[in-house]
Amino acid sequence: MNFKVKRIGLESGGKPIVVLNREDAESMGVRSLGRVKLSYNLRERVAIVNTATELLSRGEIFLYEEVYKYLGAPDGGLIEVEPVGFPRSTEYIRNKLRGRQLDSNEIREIVKDVVNGALSEVEITSFVIALAKEGLDLDEAVSLTNAMVETGDTLVLDKEVIVDKHSIGGVPGDKTTLLVVPIVAAAGLCIPKSSSRAITSAAGSAERAETLMNVELSVDEMRRVVEKTNGCIVWGGAIHLAPADDIFVQVEYPLSIDPLLLPSIMSKKKAVGANHLVIDIPTGRGTKIKTIGDASLLSKDFIELGKRLNIRTQCAITYGEQPIGHAVGPALEAKEALEVLSRRKVVPDLIDKATHLAGILFEMCGLEAGQKRATEILASGMAEKKLREIIAEQGGNSNVKPEDIAIGSHHTNVLSSNGGYVLWIDTAKLVEVARVAGSPRDKGAGIILNKKLGSRVKQGESLFTIYAESSVKLQRAEKMLEGLKIVAVGDKMEMLLDKIEDRPRHEKTFILER
Amino acid sequence: MNFKVKRIGLESGGKPIVVLNREDAESMGVRSLGRVKLSYNLRERVAIVNTATELLSRGEIFLYEEVYKYLGAPDGGLIEVEPVGFPRSTEYIRNKLRGRQLDSNEIREIVKDVVNGALSEVEITSFVIALAKEGLDLDEAVSLTNAMVETGDTLVLDKEVIVDKHSIGGVPGDKTTLLVVPIVAAAGLCIPKSSSRAITSAAGSAERAETLMNVELSVDEMRRVVEKTNGCIVWGGAIHLAPADDIFVQVEYPLSIDPLLLPSIMSKKKAVGANHLVIDIPTGRGTKIKTIGDASLLSKDFIELGKRLNIRTQCAITYGEQPIGHAVGPALEAKEALEVLSRRKVVPDLIDKATHLAGILFEMCGLEAGQKRATEILASGMAEKKLREIIAEQGGNSNVKPEDIAIGSHHTNVLSSNGGYVLWIDTAKLVEVARVAGSPRDKGAGIILNKKLGSRVKQGESLFTIYAESSVKLQRAEKMLEGLKIVAVGDKMEMLLDKIEDRPRHEKTFILER
Repeated sequence: MNFKVKRIGLESGGKPIVVLNREDAESMGVRSLGRVKLSYNLRERVAIVNTATELLSRGEIFLYEEVYKYLGAPDGGLIEVEPVGFPRSTEYIRNKLRGRQLDSNEIREIVKDVVNGALSEVEITSFVIALAKEGLDLDEAVSLTNAMVETGDTLVLDKEVIVDKHSIGGVPGDKTTLLVVPIVAAAGLCIPKSSSRAITSAAGSAERAETLMNVELSVDEMRRVVEKTNGCIVWGGAIHLAPADDIFVQVEYPLSIDPLLLPSIMSKKKAVGANHLVIDIPTGRGTKIKTIGDASLLSKDFIELGKRLNIRTQCAITYGEQPIGHAVGPALEAKEALEVLSRRKVVPDLIDKATHLAGILFEMCGLEAGQKRATEILASGMAEKKLREIIAEQGGNSNVKPEDIAIGSHHTNVLSSNGGYVLWIDTAKLVEVARVAGSPRDKGAGIILNKKLGSRVKQGESLFTIYAESSVKLQRAEKMLEGLKIVAVGDKMEMLLDKIEDRPRHEKTFILER
Repeated sequence: MNFKVKRIGLESGGKPIVVLNREDAESMGVRSLGRVKLSYNLRERVAIVNTATELLSRGEIFLYEEVYKYLGAPDGGLIEVEPVGFPRSTEYIRNKLRGRQLDSNEIREIVKDVVNGALSEVEITSFVIALAKEGLDLDEAVSLTNAMVETGDTLVLDKEVIVDKHSIGGVPGDKTTLLVVPIVAAAGLCIPKSSSRAITSAAGSAERAETLMNVELSVDEMRRVVEKTNGCIVWGGAIHLAPADDIFVQVEYPLSIDPLLLPSIMSKKKAVGANHLVIDIPTGRGTKIKTIGDASLLSKDFIELGKRLNIRTQCAITYGEQPIGHAVGPALEAKEALEVLSRRKVVPDLIDKATHLAGILFEMCGLEAGQKRATEILASGMAEKKLREIIAEQGGNSNVKPEDIAIGSHHTNVLSSNGGYVLWIDTAKLVEVARVAGSPRDKGAGIILNKKLGSRVKQGESLFTIYAESSVKLQRAEKMLEGLKIVAVGDKMEMLLDKIEDRPRHEKTFILER
């Protein structure tokens, strides 16, 4: 049947959605959530059908922007519409939900349909839950990784050795990437680093780097920067590496499940051609991985999967029970990293972590005494020089000084009500306060931790300082602190950590950054 | 923040959806799929946020019809919009997904949010899958049933004894309801029957009855008909009994899972006040329940759940390996039922099934020799008279004769290519052919089965006749038959049922009618 196109100018967020008059839909036998195939000249597109009774006459079809742009039919033009059944991939998803293993063709079909929008929310959700409940074996993880690479863009570099570093996240203030990339690149190794923006955290590496340079590069621009400097720090979202992951994460986030952790990380590494990889697994309460035992199991999975994908992989299990360094929030963290790189400040845990990770990569590539070498590159100023080169190539101010970085002009100190030692820090709550203060959207918002684990604290001393770009957000953050214990100070003999007065509600503190 | 309303005239299919300019959404911290609370005068509504960049200026909000009508704010008027987090029910869903049992308050909260649209597709899908994967115990089934009743309309009748009958479906041609309702009502028992429309079958009871009378009654009209005649046959969808179920089924259908079978059936019975119930469980290949063992287990579940809900329940396990009677399709089935009621035809299996089910209800209510009594009521013409009363009260032609019912004018006979006995009938495929011919939307479309199981067939004899309202659809049905074996004729000694030449694709033949 032919339908007359009406452009409505709305986006559906990637899904190919069309709207039909309900009677047209029924007479074609298309139920709501059913699908139609649209044809215009030589272009075809399967779309999901919504129905309406008003404002839309019989014979008219509303196109969301995604479909409108793809088809290229003019507003008012005629397109052909015919009903189609569930795509084959829905059958595979049902099979997985019933516990059957999927083969690589089936997985490729599912991922392809996820990316081209042929699967509905219901079906994508089922697939993610099926993976979470039934698990995925190594073959399936390999197939998923490859399918996610195939359905996205890739970076092709004319290099034999390409290294990469990834943190599975979960620890606030982790500005390690801002040190590792220039250290590694300064040593002559190629590190095309793509980073993510924050989902639930106070800052992603992309936002940290964005306070110094442009991170929204195309694949071509990324290649140019890496060819010139050996490194880069770009936002992965702009270059469509493994776009399936961006869709899966929309499901995983509200459900707090993350069955695609390994394939989604490895697909983004494979898409930039990495063949030597170090994975940072922050471990501790408040992070995703609570114990060293769990971290070891996860490491084994990464290493095995890497082997199958021709990516030599090692894992670093790192301490994750408190923020790395003192700063939490994009600008505060970029400033702290720049202070360390320019040797104005010594932040021992940050330096230790960055040099260890860089050192592992060095040793994987045959360089001896890796950490020592990394420390020398940092201490010599070579790493600072390299970062400034990258900043220049990515359109930033290569002469930037730490004090040039704009920090929120409103701030408040949170004082300790008693003396003693810092016993624990609730990192998840700390992140929530930083987010209420404006992080990561307000780049100058965040927290500076004035005391860390084990520090001696006097009554009335400042535990941490909250920064915000607006007084309203600062007030909101202060209000949030009422009744909340974020930095616990006490005598090391105090055994009662907290008391529960009501049935506890599990606050959502799951951390999904990859 | 205040936003200016723009009505877009689109329906979202029940969900409260609004569209914001992407920058507005980001500055409020609302991600796509996030939620906002809308306020206008004293009306408040939580809605799910989509974003757009074109056609929508900052400070404007597009309202889908559902939200527009609920809020009552005029096009161009101002409403207040503020971000809200995930509703509490999402936490309960996550818990269930991890295997925790839900209490009645948690289930009520989930169902309430399903009905008022506060949960997204992702979250509703998760809930349904969690129930399917983790199972639900009796307490949870009771809570779900009650919650589904509470969130919908109910029928209140001033009667002590209210009976009901339900088939879990799966066998084509099952027009039993058209006989059971008048038989039971003629005996003086009150039976306020609500029926469903077909989802995957060739006809639902609502469509069968609709060829004789109006089935889209309000609760008030339903009460009036029952008070006058003791019975009725209405479409449940029009009276919003357990509307949560209509939403759950949208998820269950594409996934071919049905964890809510018991609560959804029982909630619709409880909503009409039934306290004596017979459940028909058709059993056999092609139906939902393949074996008598499975049927017994399911019966036990229904009886237990009924006990907890104060609905005395008995189950009838019935033979489901071939259609009931000969006719499949709304008008053909209504005609066959009317022929039996008016004693123009004897259709043994249909009569046996209807009188058994009515008989069980009679005996549950203290009347002896139930089936005998039912048979007498049918044979005496009392049942026919009662159906005509109901037809009259529901706005139909109470003098309708079987030959008045319009049957599709195009038909074709499907002949047997060999002689022998009917060995088996593929009921699922039979339904598919009927649907391609136009059932249930084209009321006159369908199939008349000329031979049933065990019948002697000569080569060239007609196995079944396909009826359609258009020649195009008839051709499509004929085309579908190519290479398809629906009625198998052979010698009883033939052992090879079929041969598989390629990896079989599991065709979707799951039957979800409730």
